[in-house]
Amino acid sequence: MTILPFLWTEILIPVAALIGIGFALIQWYIVSCISVSPARASESGGDDYLLEDGPDGADAMIKCAEIQKAISVAFTTVAFILGVVTSVLSGYLGMKIATYANARTTLEARKDGLLVLYIAINLFKIYYKTEREGLFEAITGYGLGGSSVALFGRVGGGIYTKAADVGADLVGKVERNIPEDDPRNPAVIADNVGDNVGDIAGMGSDLFGSFAESSCAALVVASISSFGTSHDFTAMCFPLLISSMGIVVCLITTLFATDFYEIKEVNQIEPALKRQLIISTALMTLGILLVCFLALPSSFTIYNLGSTPKVVKWWHLFFCVAVGLWAGLIIGYTTEYFTSNAYSPVQDVADSCRTGAATNIIFGLALGYKSVIIPIFAIAVAIYVSFALAVFYGIAVAALGMLSTIATGLAIDAYGPISDNAGGIAEMAGMSHHIRERTDALDAAGNTTAAIGKGFAIGSAALVSLALFGAYVSRASLTSVDVLSAKVFIGLIVGAMLPYWFSAMTMKSVGKAALSMVEEVRRQFNTIPGLMEGINNPDYATCVKISTDASIKEMIPPGALVMVTPLVVGILFGVETLAGLLAGALVSGVQIAISASNTGGAWDNAKKYIEAGASEHARSLGPKGSDAHKAAVIGDTVGDPLKDTSGPSLNILIKLMAVESLVFAPFFAAHGGLLFKIG
Amino acid sequence: MTILPFLWTEILIPVAALIGIGFALIQWYIVSCISVSPARASESGGDDYLLEDGPDGADAMIKCAEIQKAISVAFTTVAFILGVVTSVLSGYLGMKIATYANARTTLEARKDGLLVLYIAINLFKIYYKTEREGLFEAITGYGLGGSSVALFGRVGGGIYTKAADVGADLVGKVERNIPEDDPRNPAVIADNVGDNVGDIAGMGSDLFGSFAESSCAALVVASISSFGTSHDFTAMCFPLLISSMGIVVCLITTLFATDFYEIKEVNQIEPALKRQLIISTALMTLGILLVCFLALPSSFTIYNLGSTPKVVKWWHLFFCVAVGLWAGLIIGYTTEYFTSNAYSPVQDVADSCRTGAATNIIFGLALGYKSVIIPIFAIAVAIYVSFALAVFYGIAVAALGMLSTIATGLAIDAYGPISDNAGGIAEMAGMSHHIRERTDALDAAGNTTAAIGKGFAIGSAALVSLALFGAYVSRASLTSVDVLSAKVFIGLIVGAMLPYWFSAMTMKSVGKAALSMVEEVRRQFNTIPGLMEGINNPDYATCVKISTDASIKEMIPPGALVMVTPLVVGILFGVETLAGLLAGALVSGVQIAISASNTGGAWDNAKKYIEAGASEHARSLGPKGSDAHKAAVIGDTVGDPLKDTSGPSLNILIKLMAVESLVFAPFFAAHGGLLFKIG
Repeated sequence: MTILPFLWTEILIPVAALIGIGFALIQWYIVSCISVSPARASESGGDDYLLEDGPDGADAMIKCAEIQKAISVAFTTVAFILGVVTSVLSGYLGMKIATYANARTTLEARKDGLLVLYIAINLFKIYYKTEREGLFEAITGYGLGGSSVALFGRVGGGIYTKAADVGADLVGKVERNIPEDDPRNPAVIADNVGDNVGDIAGMGSDLFGSFAESSCAALVVASISSFGTSHDFTAMCFPLLISSMGIVVCLITTLFATDFYEIKEVNQIEPALKRQLIISTALMTLGILLVCFLALPSSFTIYNLGSTPKVVKWWHLFFCVAVGLWAGLIIGYTTEYFTSNAYSPVQDVADSCRTGAATNIIFGLALGYKSVIIPIFAIAVAIYVSFALAVFYGIAVAALGMLSTIATGLAIDAYGPISDNAGGIAEMAGMSHHIRERTDALDAAGNTTAAIGKGFAIGSAALVSLALFGAYVSRASLTSVDVLSAKVFIGLIVGAMLPYWFSAMTMKSVGKAALSMVEEVRRQFNTIPGLMEGINNPDYATCVKISTDASIKEMIPPGALVMVTPLVVGILFGVETLAGLLAGALVSGVQIAISASNTGGAWDNAKKYIEAGASEHARSLGPKGSDAHKAAVIGDTVGDPLKDTSGPSLNILIKLMAVESLVFAPFFAAHGGLLFKIG
Repeated sequence: MTILPFLWTEILIPVAALIGIGFALIQWYIVSCISVSPARASESGGDDYLLEDGPDGADAMIKCAEIQKAISVAFTTVAFILGVVTSVLSGYLGMKIATYANARTTLEARKDGLLVLYIAINLFKIYYKTEREGLFEAITGYGLGGSSVALFGRVGGGIYTKAADVGADLVGKVERNIPEDDPRNPAVIADNVGDNVGDIAGMGSDLFGSFAESSCAALVVASISSFGTSHDFTAMCFPLLISSMGIVVCLITTLFATDFYEIKEVNQIEPALKRQLIISTALMTLGILLVCFLALPSSFTIYNLGSTPKVVKWWHLFFCVAVGLWAGLIIGYTTEYFTSNAYSPVQDVADSCRTGAATNIIFGLALGYKSVIIPIFAIAVAIYVSFALAVFYGIAVAALGMLSTIATGLAIDAYGPISDNAGGIAEMAGMSHHIRERTDALDAAGNTTAAIGKGFAIGSAALVSLALFGAYVSRASLTSVDVLSAKVFIGLIVGAMLPYWFSAMTMKSVGKAALSMVEEVRRQFNTIPGLMEGINNPDYATCVKISTDASIKEMIPPGALVMVTPLVVGILFGVETLAGLLAGALVSGVQIAISASNTGGAWDNAKKYIEAGASEHARSLGPKGSDAHKAAVIGDTVGDPLKDTSGPSLNILIKLMAVESLVFAPFFAAHGGLLFKIG
């Protein structure tokens, strides 16, 4: 049937996964060899290019090492606590769905996705052997586990990081007039820890969740296609092969960045990252073509909603994956245009700071709203093309296409918080002004790349949710989801409301946690003698504790909203209303998520644009401390919870509700809709 | 068939309309008798209760009269220009749809709704006699005309008023440190004119548009029901009878306010307005019961989407109208809770000003998001109940039920800008501080009532659009709008994006216009000698011109977006995608509209709460000029375009797209979807 024999598939997927893991380990080893220990301070002499100015002396290096340790210890503790909480919760849910899936898959969800999924499928295949339904359910359980962990990572991490960030800025920058990331600020370590917790762990689990779910959705649809009925394992594993190819392509792309084009100047970083994105997209297009040609039968049948057969040719699937891939690139570039301070949108926002914080906020919100237009068109085209060619299977593999450059995307995204932290550490260690300027430029590029990463995350989340929605409808035995039915329409309008409810909760949480952080920071400044003079150290640990406690406590209500809503709606109102709810949450949540992350990114970079003063225009607004700059700082602070808490959490809201509905679909179809049965 | 004979219907509807008009004329006459002329200054002695402190002398009265004249002249000019522009545009569209409806109905749309619609129907009935389709089309043309005018009134008016408001505040309050509405501020007249243009004219045309469209939708559905086929004119006119009853009930309610409970204290105003709302709702419930009993056959048939028959009893329709009415009351009270400074939400927002503008903005946005929850549930229940009882006809009359207390609603709404202007005039005329405090309290109550009015407007807009959507689907010969079809889904997601696009345009417009206003105001302060000292008068006219020009120029692109989108989508993508688009715009737009108006109202009242200093807590944040107050002023300024431009315009976006699609539905069904035909 397929050119690629079964055995090769069995070998290629785990090999690609292992290569990916191995490469990551090598990179980790290289980075960890550059020790930032006091001992190294004496032997160092400017051989790290970006630190060419060298340290300002052994003191700075010692301080660096101390700070790194403080962050690292705090980070481990936080990761542990977050891990425990999320594991308990997803474990609890795992128990609840014990009839559907193995709870272990839920816990495994944080490990390297591809390999785990591959092994899981093989294990389940042995275990369930002939019973295809069982395999199917195990896979959805895996997706549910992945998403639950991602939800709490994103929400908890988002609250953690922004409580610390906003709290630190409000007292430090605004009240005490000390610079950002000044070591005298008690909340500064919590802020740096937060960057790791929220941005890296959160984004990682989010993208991983998308990957897990789109693979699941594709496998679920495939299991009831002709691949499934004819036991064509290579074709069944097509989604995993696409991901394997993605790993290989991302590795090749990395060579371009590190070997072919060496970066000599700070302002080359952003173009380099963008170039990496386009190179990986172009290579991946070829890669997809290869995979489609080798791993798919020349023609096969897919069942739409389990009934209507659709004949699909191998090159149809190529276009499905490719349209997702290129839609991702368009989303990435649009995001870059709206959030980078190299273009007019952010410069306009910066300019509006002239007349104060109010116009800055108005222009920033308008920018975010406007930035939604092109990504939505890109997503709409991807949906239409992939659906027309291969119905819901097409949408699932389009999502995988968008995610196939995930490694490059994650690198680009992680770039932001890493440079942010580097800047923070440089500031705290009292390194020269010149280094801080460099890390600021890196951080500005990082804001843009973070927004690009979020764009990918939300775009793929939209496709994934739609694919899961299709699978849900199929499992719930619905033949249509008619907006003209009142049951569906009330679901649609209430679903469109849920992202607002959720955002209200998360934003309020950040606000509340930030206020208690402010109180603590003020208390320390008022009670610890010699703190402002730099004689005594602040009590970093208390601030870390406040952020930790707030994130754990405050992530419960929004988490519960997402987890409980599908259950309540399914049981009380039935599968039609739930279908409407999912569609409503999807189409409304995507918009808020995109606009929130772009508004936040733009405000952050408008502030950095004024601070950097790289153009005539920027200098006319600055310098730091001018009225325009103060207005920009207010915008930046408002943007923090938007771009790092409520915005990106919405991806997971959409996906998690869809996958949860999918898991419980047969139950709701059989026993749900109690309210309408009584009436 | 019905208890109420045909002849009585023919008499009752115009009589009720004439009573309404007559009452309005009497009120206008009474108000106009209280002349604010210099001559009256000498004879006045405190016989107007709310001005009991008396004038500060003849000077103040003379100044009052001058200011009133300046506003009135400017207002007439602006109304004329806006009228010309909107007439030209709706005239143009009217010509385009000449085959569908008489262009005159478009122009008539601004006149008193009920009577015009009644006469129009009678004329059309004579004209079209047997051809029911023609009558139907004429009615939808009327709705389209009403909405087009409302769109430009709302958008143009919103831009007008907020450019002036934001511009005046930014230079006056922030830079020059002179009070709000100080006559030395050149933009102050433009600001006061704007309150009339934007809030009163805009809201009037908006609610009128909703009324016209829900009547139209109901009539359209009714014309293809058994009322229509059995030529039961009384039952056909049921929607108009409900509106007639609304006029009578609102008149009775007015007696309660003016005669039974006389208001002695300023703080009784807000409870009195709320009481009026609940009295009119209770009375109207009885009124609806009466109308339903008298004017409907005991049982009749309604066709869902023109095909499936549904037998409806007269008391079913009572519940349809009543559920809309009471959902309106719930929306009104929820809005009051979230925007009045008597409750914790606004007080929390005010409290967050302690830590600066950023937390104020974060808390305000979170408040707006949260305030969406209950109204959406109320709308969902109204939709479900009315649809279950009488399909789309039920939804149309539920919308009419919500609008039946429109007279009370409009009075409550107009209350805000009137007291705002009264305060402005008092300030400008240099009246005593005591009077300004009173008008401020009135204005704070006005902010809440304005938000209540907006809540009604958006709630009814949602129901009206859904009814029109039903009529559209029926005319486009669609039997279902299936979200599982890619054509529909891409419409849904793009439709959900449109309100963001539209809001981005309107907010940016306000921002731009405000910036040019700021420049002009600064120029005048810098170039007119003795302006700050109050020796020379500012050049009010130039500021009025800036606002006028900006509003006319800037309302074109958002207006075009709303008018052109259904045409483009219908022609290129066809009726299914357009159906998805309408549903998406509806479910997403409602949320943004509610959250935007409540956020804006809350920020305004948080500021007023601090200024008034009526409680221990409020005094700890104030007084005027404190850091917390400055932060509150920033929130208020951001809220201006949200609550008075982009938020309320979205109602019209939703309704206008639906009614336009309805008008062109047969054309799109026959010739649309070119893009898919090629593909």
